[in-house]
Amino acid sequence: MRPAKCFVTGAAGFIGSNLVDRLLALGHPVVGFDNFSTGQEQFLESARRHPAFQLVRGDLLQLDDTARAMRDCELVYHLAANADVRFGTEHPRRDLEQNTIATWNVLEAMRLGGIRRIAFSSTGSVYGEAPVIPTPEDCPFPVQTSLYGASKLAAEGLIAAYCEGFGMQGAIFRFVSILGERYSHGHVFDFYQQLLDHPDYLRVLGDGHPRKSYLHVQDCVDAMLRAIEAVEKPVTILNLGTDGYCEVNDSIGWICSHLGVRPRIEYTGGDRGWVGDNPFIFLNCSRMRALGWAPRYSIRESVVKTVEYLADHRWLLASRNV
Amino acid sequence: MRPAKCFVTGAAGFIGSNLVDRLLALGHPVVGFDNFSTGQEQFLESARRHPAFQLVRGDLLQLDDTARAMRDCELVYHLAANADVRFGTEHPRRDLEQNTIATWNVLEAMRLGGIRRIAFSSTGSVYGEAPVIPTPEDCPFPVQTSLYGASKLAAEGLIAAYCEGFGMQGAIFRFVSILGERYSHGHVFDFYQQLLDHPDYLRVLGDGHPRKSYLHVQDCVDAMLRAIEAVEKPVTILNLGTDGYCEVNDSIGWICSHLGVRPRIEYTGGDRGWVGDNPFIFLNCSRMRALGWAPRYSIRESVVKTVEYLADHRWLLASRNV
Repeated sequence: MRPAKCFVTGAAGFIGSNLVDRLLALGHPVVGFDNFSTGQEQFLESARRHPAFQLVRGDLLQLDDTARAMRDCELVYHLAANADVRFGTEHPRRDLEQNTIATWNVLEAMRLGGIRRIAFSSTGSVYGEAPVIPTPEDCPFPVQTSLYGASKLAAEGLIAAYCEGFGMQGAIFRFVSILGERYSHGHVFDFYQQLLDHPDYLRVLGDGHPRKSYLHVQDCVDAMLRAIEAVEKPVTILNLGTDGYCEVNDSIGWICSHLGVRPRIEYTGGDRGWVGDNPFIFLNCSRMRALGWAPRYSIRESVVKTVEYLADHRWLLASRNV
Repeated sequence: MRPAKCFVTGAAGFIGSNLVDRLLALGHPVVGFDNFSTGQEQFLESARRHPAFQLVRGDLLQLDDTARAMRDCELVYHLAANADVRFGTEHPRRDLEQNTIATWNVLEAMRLGGIRRIAFSSTGSVYGEAPVIPTPEDCPFPVQTSLYGASKLAAEGLIAAYCEGFGMQGAIFRFVSILGERYSHGHVFDFYQQLLDHPDYLRVLGDGHPRKSYLHVQDCVDAMLRAIEAVEKPVTILNLGTDGYCEVNDSIGWICSHLGVRPRIEYTGGDRGWVGDNPFIFLNCSRMRALGWAPRYSIRESVVKTVEYLADHRWLLASRNV
């Protein structure tokens, strides 16, 4: 079967650019869409040399531009987002616009163009502080604790309602934190940057005990590609993560050991890193595993590979300080 | 204790205007806010004669206007909404704007004005097609089936995230369908209007078997006022309904019997009235009952009282046909 022409939002982002490279390698024509607010030109260097890749610089908040760029595509991977869960309260409109309203525009563009399939990157943050851990997709109806989670849940709801109302098909992925090549934001990034600046000292938000699960970006892309082939229902919701978790202190240990440093660690205290942080995220991913997928990398391997990647791509650290 | 100054959005609406009258009777100063897109001047006739009532015509999508009108209020009842669950797919942006973005503006206006308490009218539609009936607030994480439900769920999420992030306190009410004085939209309205126009014939969407729960507006207002006094957590979610349900055919029977008509009934067929309709809505309201509230009206009484109200206020039927 001829590979479907794909539209990837957030194509110049961490996960988006990895997905674009994989789709191109699999023979899919790809239209990459990005506003480059956080996307990186360099992440698309290889894709842009590929004849089946087209890059569109645009803003998902502009419905007409989005619909025009999407024309002739058959499958939408909607990965563009404000992924900055930590600073939601500092600019509360950003999550609403970038995650919720932008998703509505993607859906409207699909409806206008008769495009029926969408894959969406949601987040384990929609579970708030889940009473069931590891958390399955059908855990008790959660209460939102962050603007990021709320804005992603809102997007999930819009997608499901569009699938029901307009005969579309959606695959919604609730990610744990993703690590690996082109990772450019999050605690491993922060720790690595700090240890480059001052190898003898590390400042840690919270008490070091928050427990989180992580997944390598290649495992994440594998899962999305696998699921897209397998889903049958109008709406399929799938957790994506590893079958484990670690404490923040564990990843600090792995990073320091890899870098050969022994910093003095100062904890800001409290059982969470910031307002709305969740001290324990660990997802039950058996639904995704039942589709024949399993992650290849352990959390420790993902953390170490991420540090190796950052060490080889120091321009990325500089770019985030501008 | 001095009664709190209240800000009521959708003040000229069905539930809003009933709430305004009750708040004024209890001694609360009230600022009523409405854009009169579906609100009715006549519903505020009594309130506008009250010295503690102030009416502001405005649009919640205008943040500055909303924030200005809200100044000095202590408690926000956010009831303004596009309540038109049935026609979501005909104008898909309306739910997003009127229910989700408008709620974000209410929250932002509260944040800017240092107002910390909000009560919100959500809906049992957020449960989609619930696997557990009667459905409790912590039922399995649902999949959305209507743009209306999705837009209300999004608003719930924003409220919860604001409560967590900015130290506010929210009471979120998931209503069944509300009936009673000033009811002006929904199936009892449609049936009554049809039977006025042609008493010998009634057209019914679906097969007549959808089962729904209903609550009288005075019971609804009682519950909100009771809950607002009782809640302690940052976010409290409460189902509001009666301990029963009826088939569409039951309410047709009560209406026809009350009107003394025996129409020929034509069913459009199918187990639901429209795309995204839910064939069975029945909520477990034990959480609200545990706060010392119980409804006074049965569903049958509510249906009959609604028909009586419409018969006494035929201008309302005319106003909806403009």
